[in-house]
Amino acid sequence: MQPLIEVGILGATGVVGQQFVARLARHPWFKPTWLAASERSEGKAYASVAPWRLTTPIPDELGPKTVEACTPGRGPRVVFSGLDASVAGEIEQAFASAGHFVVSNARNYRMDPLVPLLIPEVNGDHLSLVAEQQQAKGWKGAIVTNPNCSTIVLALALAPLRVFDLKSVLVSTMQAVSGAGYPGVPSLDILGNVVPFIGGEEEKIEAETLKILGSDGGRTPHTAMISAHTNRVAVLDGHIMTVSVDLGAKPANDDVIEALRRFRGRPQELELPSAPHPPIVVSFDNNRPQPRLDADRGDGMAITVGRVRPCKVTHTKFVALGHNTVRGAAGAAILNAELMAADRMFA
Amino acid sequence: MQPLIEVGILGATGVVGQQFVARLARHPWFKPTWLAASERSEGKAYASVAPWRLTTPIPDELGPKTVEACTPGRGPRVVFSGLDASVAGEIEQAFASAGHFVVSNARNYRMDPLVPLLIPEVNGDHLSLVAEQQQAKGWKGAIVTNPNCSTIVLALALAPLRVFDLKSVLVSTMQAVSGAGYPGVPSLDILGNVVPFIGGEEEKIEAETLKILGSDGGRTPHTAMISAHTNRVAVLDGHIMTVSVDLGAKPANDDVIEALRRFRGRPQELELPSAPHPPIVVSFDNNRPQPRLDADRGDGMAITVGRVRPCKVTHTKFVALGHNTVRGAAGAAILNAELMAADRMFA
Amino acid sequence: MQPLIEVGILGATGVVGQQFVARLARHPWFKPTWLAASERSEGKAYASVAPWRLTTPIPDELGPKTVEACTPGRGPRVVFSGLDASVAGEIEQAFASAGHFVVSNARNYRMDPLVPLLIPEVNGDHLSLVAEQQQAKGWKGAIVTNPNCSTIVLALALAPLRVFDLKSVLVSTMQAVSGAGYPGVPSLDILGNVVPFIGGEEEKIEAETLKILGSDGGRTPHTAMISAHTNRVAVLDGHIMTVSVDLGAKPANDDVIEALRRFRGRPQELELPSAPHPPIVVSFDNNRPQPRLDADRGDGMAITVGRVRPCKVTHTKFVALGHNTVRGAAGAAILNAELMAADRMFA
Amino acid sequence: MQPLIEVGILGATGVVGQQFVARLARHPWFKPTWLAASERSEGKAYASVAPWRLTTPIPDELGPKTVEACTPGRGPRVVFSGLDASVAGEIEQAFASAGHFVVSNARNYRMDPLVPLLIPEVNGDHLSLVAEQQQAKGWKGAIVTNPNCSTIVLALALAPLRVFDLKSVLVSTMQAVSGAGYPGVPSLDILGNVVPFIGGEEEKIEAETLKILGSDGGRTPHTAMISAHTNRVAVLDGHIMTVSVDLGAKPANDDVIEALRRFRGRPQELELPSAPHPPIVVSFDNNRPQPRLDADRGDGMAITVGRVRPCKVTHTKFVALGHNTVRGAAGAAILNAELMAADRMFA
Repeated sequence: MQPLIEVGILGATGVVGQQFVARLARHPWFKPTWLAASERSEGKAYASVAPWRLTTPIPDELGPKTVEACTPGRGPRVVFSGLDASVAGEIEQAFASAGHFVVSNARNYRMDPLVPLLIPEVNGDHLSLVAEQQQAKGWKGAIVTNPNCSTIVLALALAPLRVFDLKSVLVSTMQAVSGAGYPGVPSLDILGNVVPFIGGEEEKIEAETLKILGSDGGRTPHTAMISAHTNRVAVLDGHIMTVSVDLGAKPANDDVIEALRRFRGRPQELELPSAPHPPIVVSFDNNRPQPRLDADRGDGMAITVGRVRPCKVTHTKFVALGHNTVRGAAGAAILNAELMAADRMFA
Repeated sequence: MQPLIEVGILGATGVVGQQFVARLARHPWFKPTWLAASERSEGKAYASVAPWRLTTPIPDELGPKTVEACTPGRGPRVVFSGLDASVAGEIEQAFASAGHFVVSNARNYRMDPLVPLLIPEVNGDHLSLVAEQQQAKGWKGAIVTNPNCSTIVLALALAPLRVFDLKSVLVSTMQAVSGAGYPGVPSLDILGNVVPFIGGEEEKIEAETLKILGSDGGRTPHTAMISAHTNRVAVLDGHIMTVSVDLGAKPANDDVIEALRRFRGRPQELELPSAPHPPIVVSFDNNRPQPRLDADRGDGMAITVGRVRPCKVTHTKFVALGHNTVRGAAGAAILNAELMAADRMFA
Repeated sequence: MQPLIEVGILGATGVVGQQFVARLARHPWFKPTWLAASERSEGKAYASVAPWRLTTPIPDELGPKTVEACTPGRGPRVVFSGLDASVAGEIEQAFASAGHFVVSNARNYRMDPLVPLLIPEVNGDHLSLVAEQQQAKGWKGAIVTNPNCSTIVLALALAPLRVFDLKSVLVSTMQAVSGAGYPGVPSLDILGNVVPFIGGEEEKIEAETLKILGSDGGRTPHTAMISAHTNRVAVLDGHIMTVSVDLGAKPANDDVIEALRRFRGRPQELELPSAPHPPIVVSFDNNRPQPRLDADRGDGMAITVGRVRPCKVTHTKFVALGHNTVRGAAGAAILNAELMAADRMFA
Repeated sequence: MQPLIEVGILGATGVVGQQFVARLARHPWFKPTWLAASERSEGKAYASVAPWRLTTPIPDELGPKTVEACTPGRGPRVVFSGLDASVAGEIEQAFASAGHFVVSNARNYRMDPLVPLLIPEVNGDHLSLVAEQQQAKGWKGAIVTNPNCSTIVLALALAPLRVFDLKSVLVSTMQAVSGAGYPGVPSLDILGNVVPFIGGEEEKIEAETLKILGSDGGRTPHTAMISAHTNRVAVLDGHIMTVSVDLGAKPANDDVIEALRRFRGRPQELELPSAPHPPIVVSFDNNRPQPRLDADRGDGMAITVGRVRPCKVTHTKFVALGHNTVRGAAGAAILNAELMAADRMFA
């Protein structure tokens, strides 16, 4: 048995940071030994400063741990970043420059042409950018990112459909409030309501999806046209979306379903610890997927696709759902790090 | 001043029937004098049998009124129908055959080629079917219907866009629970959840919209392709939907907005009592319309359209919202009857 | 007909301030001519700085009005205060000192022995404190306050029961999110949840109720013992509470009901514009009152009491409900000012 | 290692029956080998007739199992009953008469003086009624029941306080919609609302609690006075309640807290498989317990008590919470059966 890889967490007290703490504390490969956050928390016990919002308790071994400042060079070589975008840009770069592998959930470097925007099942080969990044920047460390919480559901659902000549995608999301962090969405805005706008979200979905499905590490975006409508709904966890796709190859509906069902990626082949089996659950129940019943499938790492059927306008339409704070955030970054570990990038 | 037109209500104790009672009790042209429901309620005071769910109280003059059976030939010449689809087919036909004008919210005859499926602002000319219907059936009465609660929002929003050569429509709805009646949607299904399926709803939206926008009384459907995704969300009142449309004429975005803003129909010209001014409120606030804040616009009879912007896949995309139990049910039927009265069909 | 009394609004852009604006714009006695807020809004049009959250639109005549700073001596003699407690203490005192009548919804001076804590139906005679306050402080103006949004429902429900020798009160509230302002309660805290704690609320309910029901302007508190549990629930508007009271006189249940039903106060006698008729609606329907169906009774100014029945532990128990942002905030202050105007205090 | 005890489930397709299926499938002592339901389901595969509503999937080994009729004499000696009260009375008696041990969640026999109403931590000695029941009825089987879902939370929280001379209890509940089964509470009734009435619930809480805390198998009820207010709120799982208790011994608040914290019962001593450790979690966080964050404590079998503090009217007040479909239904019955098994009643 391999020794555990020590990891640190940047932004450990935030909503995504708490997910990192909870999931890494029971991880078979990684051992979180270093928790960093803003100066406000520095020097205090983690349990005393993290406004813990998960239903599972704070891991016993991490609650008493002293929170440190986000100082590059301190902490383990591998750090997960749950930093807010307002500070992630500067800090992540400083850490990479200081030799850390920064496995980040922040949006700041996702569209950087030298930074992989990774979904291990979909574009694991984009990790080849890491060497280019290190050379171009003169870093020993590197930054690797995972997509936005809606993008990851959409891109994973679209990946198996590329073989059918994906020409266009129309997506309308219904997103959970946990996607906006804490305090996030005011209850007066969302109780019994829908807000048909999430700032910057449509642009992110459109651009990130094409990079992920693209070639040359994402520098040549996929040629499909994508248009997104994004909505906030009164759901706690789980982003659900209706999707209409134009498939140039005009496959039969059963072939589309089979492509989704049979889809596997490197995480499944390598049996990475967080890999869901299968990554895409296809539901044949008319009124599924539903956020409350299906977001936790595959320990929150599988997406569920249902109602796959012909579309009178495009070619095929369906519903897709994924857990936005697991597959769409901390779990995504951890799966990225698992692939990097399996590829001996941390060796 | 004209004398009031006496009207009856079929299915007066149900959810839609209650809306008829509340809105007709204060109507300037119509006077509800006859309330009919199933045998279970026959002979009892309305207030004692209607499970009243509105925030406004039961109108004083109608609460003590004795509920009668749905017997054709009884009651006034003009009757509104809030009957459930399971019984509306037979009863409405019997009333029309007995000489009543049945202004119905039920779905049973909406797609009948001799029955107008009416939105007065959009296809008031389809009322010409009434004479054909009477002749073909040998009736002195007639049946006139209003569309499904989602269709009416979509069709009203699309009507001004016909001038731009409407080629295709992709719509994804987020519908309120009041659209399913009472008891309707179980709370266990919808609290903190989304249900991405409403039985028969997608087919109704697709077919009804093309009939309404069509010619020859709807017998020649509009040529656009329509594809609908329908979802139930945890909202009380107000169906909101994202819409992407392909406009062959490729108008500038400002021209699309102007067409929506300037749209008027016969209800506005005739200043019908329930006509909203304007019928389509265009919002320029990024995060509007919202069901809770905008469903009541125009006393619930206006729809609100917002976020009109270019779509990377079709041509134009926007958000539309309307009050499903007002503009989408009782208010729709009452506006239909107002147009019929203005056209002297009840004379 | 009397000329309108000009009034100003302190904190006009906040949640309570918006309620003042909406309700005063259509008031038969008062005319809002002066809107004041923090420096951030100074010099700008009201409509451009108020984050309007009501379903009714901004009144036409007030939307373009320039917002001014909260400068004592500026503005009309009568000012309503919707200020946040963090700033209300200093500003309200400065205004009273400068000769303004400050009719305040803020909590800062509620328990001041020289400041009336007023519910016009209950303790209108406490207005006699105003003269004492002016003399003691050397002010030409004065401060008059209304209670906390839960207190007002409880105290109004208890007022008719004083005749039965009220010995103790146990109340457990279920309070709407609008009571916490905007952004207020994070949706992650309250969706599908109950939070059994509201900071400072239990103390306020216990102390304020005894002052209101007390004598000598509230300086001799009522002798009853009161204990409150306060909870936040996923409701938009309307605080509902279960109440158990020990009535030393041991009245029959019907007598308790009659006392509640027949209760009237000076607002009803004087027919003040905002006075609800009756102030306490007694419901005989087992599952009422409900926030969604009953909060708006009496234009939001009546409370509803239901399920009045014997209690095995105390003597009597019941459920009470009131609209927290109307009867519990702006509407309460306006009714206070109406009583002051009727008593010629502004003459 | 002991061989597994075979068990059956009456009403296996219902909401409580599904909980039995899910929890028993992974039970270390019991093996569900027989699923019975109404005639409608007889002869069909369980997975094809159970409207499965849990987030965990149907256990692999039980999904294909053929559902049988509720025929006494068929199936294992130990049967769990999740039957609806409308049919439980007759069926459970027939099974007991035919020699089965019926471990029931139905309310029908809870107040029968010969039937134990059991909370293993509180009144395990009431199992002595079983022998009396068998003798009086001439049965080889027996019926044992667990309390109503609110009662169990209250009675468990009160049990440690009996040592302080419990004189009276005032409780106001806020109950989850899952307590009403499926379809249960209509969403139109509860979205953004509170319903201050649950039919029969207050009577059950008052009577059942006194039987459980009573002596002589519950035939001598506890002498405390209890009064309950019951409310339905928009929560999925977890009944939360505010409680005020009069403790004649006037203990210090810290002593009350210690009594709650140190409380243990026979399930903890015997280390029964479903026993939570501890049975009562005492929270010291002001805004806890909360249904969403705390209902699952102890795998749903622990209750959480918080905000223990003096009460100005009674003596002590606090908040209590428990999972209504686990500790309040299926989990309760299973723990009952575990105690019976440990006591060799099934031997």
